[in-house]
Amino acid sequence: MLSFFKSFDESRLLSAFTDRTSLIEQVDCKLSAQAQDHIDQLTKPQGSLGELENIASRLFCIGSGKAPLGVDKGILFTIAADHGVVEEGVSASTQEVTRQMLQNFLNGGAGVNVLCNSTGMDFVAVDAGVAGPELAPHPSLINAKIAHGTANMAKGPAMTVSQTLLALLLGFELADMAAERGYKCFGAGEMGIGNTTPSSALFCAFLGIQPEDSVGIGAGLLPEKLAHKADVVARALDVNREAVNSGDALQVLASLGGIEIAVMAGIMLGAAKNRLPMLVDGFIATAAYLAAFKLVPAVEDYCFFAHCSAESAHTLVLERLGKKPLLNLGLRLGEGTGAALGMPILRAACDMYNNMASFKNAGVNPNS
Amino acid sequence: MLSFFKSFDESRLLSAFTDRTSLIEQVDCKLSAQAQDHIDQLTKPQGSLGELENIASRLFCIGSGKAPLGVDKGILFTIAADHGVVEEGVSASTQEVTRQMLQNFLNGGAGVNVLCNSTGMDFVAVDAGVAGPELAPHPSLINAKIAHGTANMAKGPAMTVSQTLLALLLGFELADMAAERGYKCFGAGEMGIGNTTPSSALFCAFLGIQPEDSVGIGAGLLPEKLAHKADVVARALDVNREAVNSGDALQVLASLGGIEIAVMAGIMLGAAKNRLPMLVDGFIATAAYLAAFKLVPAVEDYCFFAHCSAESAHTLVLERLGKKPLLNLGLRLGEGTGAALGMPILRAACDMYNNMASFKNAGVNPNS
Repeated sequence: MLSFFKSFDESRLLSAFTDRTSLIEQVDCKLSAQAQDHIDQLTKPQGSLGELENIASRLFCIGSGKAPLGVDKGILFTIAADHGVVEEGVSASTQEVTRQMLQNFLNGGAGVNVLCNSTGMDFVAVDAGVAGPELAPHPSLINAKIAHGTANMAKGPAMTVSQTLLALLLGFELADMAAERGYKCFGAGEMGIGNTTPSSALFCAFLGIQPEDSVGIGAGLLPEKLAHKADVVARALDVNREAVNSGDALQVLASLGGIEIAVMAGIMLGAAKNRLPMLVDGFIATAAYLAAFKLVPAVEDYCFFAHCSAESAHTLVLERLGKKPLLNLGLRLGEGTGAALGMPILRAACDMYNNMASFKNAGVNPNS
Repeated sequence: MLSFFKSFDESRLLSAFTDRTSLIEQVDCKLSAQAQDHIDQLTKPQGSLGELENIASRLFCIGSGKAPLGVDKGILFTIAADHGVVEEGVSASTQEVTRQMLQNFLNGGAGVNVLCNSTGMDFVAVDAGVAGPELAPHPSLINAKIAHGTANMAKGPAMTVSQTLLALLLGFELADMAAERGYKCFGAGEMGIGNTTPSSALFCAFLGIQPEDSVGIGAGLLPEKLAHKADVVARALDVNREAVNSGDALQVLASLGGIEIAVMAGIMLGAAKNRLPMLVDGFIATAAYLAAFKLVPAVEDYCFFAHCSAESAHTLVLERLGKKPLLNLGLRLGEGTGAALGMPILRAACDMYNNMASFKNAGVNPNS
């Protein structure tokens, strides 16, 4: 489908994008009263399953009131792409590692493979913008390269608006394909050496966070290089100030984002379009979420924040967004590993809703 | 086996107990360097899987350096018993609910049944001290009633020392039975109307927490009754002050504990005896842990704290113990529900350790 879209000019891409976003409906949160009424009949003190109850209630609303609830089978997309900003020395590793790790995903040896197997999610890797030639075809790989990495955002826009729209549309297509194949829940993660830096820049632009508060060590930057990383973010914000000041989310995402970040944002919007729940991974996925939210605020209630990353600014960002993640395990691997670990919690919430006995059926009388 | 022990007098019970505790060995934490060395070869930035790495490392030590790691299949014991202190009006429900819920466990309709199914643990309910006659035999039930509930701890010791030892020995037997059948990980939870009150009293006695800081609403006590609940705890501490001041953990557990609390403590000690990991559930299970720890400090490193309960004092207690739980989902149901939810995290840690590719094998060079 990507080659089809690639023949489009920017205005036709924009119209293809808005065609899709116009189909996204707000989650009907009024249905939560009906869900909670059911949950309150189950054999447990009211409210005693805490977040599981909130999750089940939200899944009920996302599904427009359908029961039983279900998140199986889920699918996790790991989107790989490279970043021109690595030439500024913001990463401990070189670009080649993105490609090496993509191959590792296909061999099944990466963290995300193992955790998807562990928690029962299917896995697909997507080359959306890795530098260098395509890898050989593989059943777990979607070759959909939009570019050989982004341009250096410290010197100008990371992406063109057309590239950004292509990436968003790719995300929609991935979500649609998965929904057509019967998947009930999506996860999104990423691989892209250097991609904490554009994420930090997006948090600065969208949330008004200061560059020095937005950066962390990523995959292993030396702490003494953090000030330099913050300076690179500040330069990117400055050189792209017209886009940043425009308040136009698409311009901001194009200028400061990354291909995999835009694809993840597209998957989130695609989940919303298909009325399916979405597990948001960590720091970089949250940047993608924020772009998606700025583009279409209705995406919010479809998204579950899987975990709070050890990347230092993630705590601050989640606080600003008013989000309490499912897990807090000090992870900072990315790839979608945190999203995969969130799956058993969503599953448990569904099982509670579907399978627990009611007081009446169980002959339990808590007020006896 | 219980009827066998029941013929023993207190000194013989004590000697049977110390025979077992003498077999508990300290986890060899020095092995963690070897585990971390393996983990650091896996294709991810060092330390980037956070708590999963710590868990895997500790499981390696618990198993004395055996690999691959494994926690499957796990078994969760839900221990049911009643409490004389309910006559003080410390609970929203009456004692009959303990028995009704035990039946609900056998019918498979309770929260713990559903969550054990969801996360892949086997489940057994144990009647260790429910008021009233035994339930009919059932494949998921162990009838091992030590008494028809405890005495009212606000008026004297909740249990005799013999009852306490019987309960601890029952826990050991359950652990041994499960280990013999090949289970690799245990969980323990409870059902017992009124059992947050003895748990609070144990925290006061063992940790020096004040009664007013130790109590919460449990399964649904009206907030205006919290002061009364604290007063009951204070009276229990006062009337049992000789035991409390003795510093003898067995005397404290007998005076202020509960049958299910002592059985859970015994299971934890039994896990340690069998060198197997233990998932500790919430507020009441933590009281059992604390009793086990005071009896045999070496139990500590075998135990994983599954979650921080919404029962208000649990946060304080975990802080005092220096423990960061795996989950924080606002649960306050008990039964072992939180322990069941911890299982996928332990499993994920094992899978990471066993199944991820190394940098060398994957051809990934992070320093390229």
